[in-house]
Amino acid sequence: MTDAATARRSRLTPERAAELYEAVLDLLREVGYDALTMDAVAARTRSSKATLYRQWGGKAELVARAIRHSKPGRISDVDTGSLRGDFLALVHREDDCAMEQNTALMRGLAMATHTNPDLLQAFREQVIEPEMTELRGMLSRAVDRGEVAPDNPALPFVVHMMIGAFATRALIDEQPPTQDFLSSYIDAVILPALGVPTT
Amino acid sequence: MTDAATARRSRLTPERAAELYEAVLDLLREVGYDALTMDAVAARTRSSKATLYRQWGGKAELVARAIRHSKPGRISDVDTGSLRGDFLALVHREDDCAMEQNTALMRGLAMATHTNPDLLQAFREQVIEPEMTELRGMLSRAVDRGEVAPDNPALPFVVHMMIGAFATRALIDEQPPTQDFLSSYIDAVILPALGVPTT
Repeated sequence: MTDAATARRSRLTPERAAELYEAVLDLLREVGYDALTMDAVAARTRSSKATLYRQWGGKAELVARAIRHSKPGRISDVDTGSLRGDFLALVHREDDCAMEQNTALMRGLAMATHTNPDLLQAFREQVIEPEMTELRGMLSRAVDRGEVAPDNPALPFVVHMMIGAFATRALIDEQPPTQDFLSSYIDAVILPALGVPTT
Repeated sequence: MTDAATARRSRLTPERAAELYEAVLDLLREVGYDALTMDAVAARTRSSKATLYRQWGGKAELVARAIRHSKPGRISDVDTGSLRGDFLALVHREDDCAMEQNTALMRGLAMATHTNPDLLQAFREQVIEPEMTELRGMLSRAVDRGEVAPDNPALPFVVHMMIGAFATRALIDEQPPTQDFLSSYIDAVILPALGVPTT
């Protein structure tokens, strides 16, 4: 369902939906997923709980849609004409400060999915699958342009490579991912694995 | 400190230390890190808590050393004469069943490090740093043999690539990592990024 469809179903304006999503993200940063309640969301946004449940079905879907909404544009909006340009544009959609905050948020949610199967499912449906579809579109344009061979064996692993960079940066290097780090990783790992020259 | 040094300090035999580590891993699988107590370890192993504290200092170090001990041999024991052979030998040290169990255990511990800084520190000192040193040794032999250029920009990212494969396999593919999956990933991603032919 698109944001516009969500707004139609509930007669929420997109602006109002955006306000609700922002409040959910603020609460997530303050208390984490497990301690977040629909009561708290209702109170902070001056909504009724009935509205929230009718609109989103439950906490898991509300949180997943808030995350989806917080992304800085769609991957499919990025189309620079080269795969390297597309990857670097993705990395530069957020500045380092926003990226550090969002990485912390995503790490907390990834932890919460282990004990909340409904969150895992909503997260897959609302965030992971749409982003993977968009990313596959970006890669398939690179194949169409002849930049990447259609049978390149690294194509199915691009997401694994990317998430690896985010997930291990804190654990191994004790640093948040930054634009510089991710740009180096793209040039050193992802593009060579895909057989794309980096210069 | 080596296992032998640990045993000397406490007059524990290596066999007795191995028993204690096994019991710690069993308890970890049963209740998780946060619910694990030194009392429970003492009871299950018929040790005194004083012995456990004198020997390991605390829960975080005991758990980290148990994990280190559970690894199927040292990375530095693997030396097949080629980088591809070394990577594939690493993957085949554990069968798929053991790998699935250990991945679940490591994921639980990775989660626990977020709220237990002493565990994170012990884990870095006892597990991550020794393994990274051994892995660098394996890579440096490949450089010495002329398989990898000494200035290959992917060399610092090998750990990120490998952990990415483990960490994302469950989230993205809803499957545990297997020997087949990891072998494909090595041939499709890691070796091409390092400029090593896979055939």
